[in-house]
Amino acid sequence: MKVGVIGGGQLGRMLSLAGTPLGMQFTFLDPAVDACAAAVGEHLLGGYDSQEHLQQLAQTVDLVTFEFESVPAETVAFLEQFVPVYPSANALRIARDRWFEKSMFKALGIPTTEFADVLSQADLEAAVAQIGLPAVLKTRTLGYDGKGQKVLREAADVVDAFAYLGNVPCILEGFVAFSGEVSLIAVRGRDGEVLSYPLVHNVHNDGILHLSVASDEHPLQALAQDYAERVLKELDYVGVLAFEFFEVDGGLKANEIAPRVHNSGHWTIEGAECSQFENHLRAVAGLPLGSVEKVGHSAMLNFIGSIPATADVVAVADCHLHDYSKAFKPGRKVGHATLRSQSAQRLQEQIAALEALLDS
Amino acid sequence: MKVGVIGGGQLGRMLSLAGTPLGMQFTFLDPAVDACAAAVGEHLLGGYDSQEHLQQLAQTVDLVTFEFESVPAETVAFLEQFVPVYPSANALRIARDRWFEKSMFKALGIPTTEFADVLSQADLEAAVAQIGLPAVLKTRTLGYDGKGQKVLREAADVVDAFAYLGNVPCILEGFVAFSGEVSLIAVRGRDGEVLSYPLVHNVHNDGILHLSVASDEHPLQALAQDYAERVLKELDYVGVLAFEFFEVDGGLKANEIAPRVHNSGHWTIEGAECSQFENHLRAVAGLPLGSVEKVGHSAMLNFIGSIPATADVVAVADCHLHDYSKAFKPGRKVGHATLRSQSAQRLQEQIAALEALLDS
Repeated sequence: MKVGVIGGGQLGRMLSLAGTPLGMQFTFLDPAVDACAAAVGEHLLGGYDSQEHLQQLAQTVDLVTFEFESVPAETVAFLEQFVPVYPSANALRIARDRWFEKSMFKALGIPTTEFADVLSQADLEAAVAQIGLPAVLKTRTLGYDGKGQKVLREAADVVDAFAYLGNVPCILEGFVAFSGEVSLIAVRGRDGEVLSYPLVHNVHNDGILHLSVASDEHPLQALAQDYAERVLKELDYVGVLAFEFFEVDGGLKANEIAPRVHNSGHWTIEGAECSQFENHLRAVAGLPLGSVEKVGHSAMLNFIGSIPATADVVAVADCHLHDYSKAFKPGRKVGHATLRSQSAQRLQEQIAALEALLDS
Repeated sequence: MKVGVIGGGQLGRMLSLAGTPLGMQFTFLDPAVDACAAAVGEHLLGGYDSQEHLQQLAQTVDLVTFEFESVPAETVAFLEQFVPVYPSANALRIARDRWFEKSMFKALGIPTTEFADVLSQADLEAAVAQIGLPAVLKTRTLGYDGKGQKVLREAADVVDAFAYLGNVPCILEGFVAFSGEVSLIAVRGRDGEVLSYPLVHNVHNDGILHLSVASDEHPLQALAQDYAERVLKELDYVGVLAFEFFEVDGGLKANEIAPRVHNSGHWTIEGAECSQFENHLRAVAGLPLGSVEKVGHSAMLNFIGSIPATADVVAVADCHLHDYSKAFKPGRKVGHATLRSQSAQRLQEQIAALEALLDS
């Protein structure tokens, strides 16, 4: 089976590393000459809005999927004329727009923060009057890793905030006083079968994921799965979907969904029986899903900007390095490592040993 | 790090799948236009004896390794002028020649079958007189998967046997009445550190590996490791070495070594903390070795000639398919699957479910 992927970054690269053993062959459409997925597949060098390249891709593959959601809706609609595309244009349309996404949560009875649509500075002022401060103004689309947002703490912050984010459609979200951040990686097959990995505890630094720890019988697992299943069914979704939640007062408030494999699911490569990458591919290819059971205890630590010396990283006990072969650059995700252990106690020691390398 | 691999078959392919996450980039020298490793690296289309291509390879990589041992000694010697090569020319010279190999076992005090060098039909007749029948006549080099050998049961089989195998240097080996076949996958780092995976029980069909099951505290583990360590030290070996033994009267008789990652170690991809492929690359790259601990119970089943439908294979519980994307052909290794389980009992049920697909 030939799989086309929109985007050729580390997620595409890891999709190929998981799918090549299934006999799949990958083609990545990416405008970057140094797309890191090119090491493990064909690289179609072209823009996401180039009909010529999209058509070329569609003609050479059996199906198309995505490694990021910020794809123009027209791109997906164009592709769907020629080749099966998973997840669907409709799922991407909802997931890439914070207003559609939160409106869907509300319609499905999934608790989320207060929010308001902001299409102008006047809208923003009305929304602040309604929701109060502090609050967060975010662009409806294209935001990630803390980009495309501004925290509003006092009245002075509101002035010109809409212009600050570029005079584009925004959403104002009430501040959530949360006790923790968790994410659920769920997968839905073409036949509607849904499986969910154990909830993951996430720690962010400066808006970028730093550490994910797979949980052990989390008390909110069933609730998170219930919410995810509502969304997956609503969107008639096919593939992996990541669902980020805030833990609030012993319950969950939905933060956002990502219609793709997700950084907080990277631990599944070594830490689960079947990884999120393989399960995404099984789902889009119409194959039976694989087991989402944990294998021992696992944690994932991101390498942001740079990676310590390979010899030091792999010297940490049961440490699995994933170097994306990307040029080092401040703030850029260039790799991660998964730590696996038979004991939760020992896992903490391994995390400490790996974090010590980051500080040195 | 740029790694050159002599050979671009499934072993090269799995080396890249293990090494790409370490940030390594692979170039495969292989004369076959459809070399299956090309999907996950650069393919240098050329013969193993082409000095032009060997030089080109040496100039673009940091080190060279092998996915098969039947490389002309001149090839290795030529490469060693330009670039580090692991394992060394000397290790390959011994391992690729059954006479050198068995003579080394004898010199190191490692029990092996009776054997005699056969350079002519007259030599063969003298050897038969010494060793007796039944016996096996094998070419000294280039034999694999039951090829390049002839079983001699009675006097009539001896007539013209040397010519039957092509009038090339041979070895006559006494028949071994064994109770089982096991292999040890060992790895030695550049610094001399040696680690060994748990012994593997192997079942062959028609001379080709059919099933490997990783053992649990095998009583002969320490003995096998002792033998392997003698060989690794003698050869000043760097990388993974596979050591095949016959189980005879509660002890071991050495059958052969393979100076490379080995089919009977494929289960380590999912079944061990760090796979044989990653450990081979760690060793040749001078990195610390990874843990060889088992993760649960594992078995590996080869797909010879063809692979059942992907959907059927991955529907077996905790089954990990490795489709090499090679054209199906009788007798050809085209893929394997690893089964993993928390229970040895359940593992047997999974093996039965997978074997049922082969018969259908």
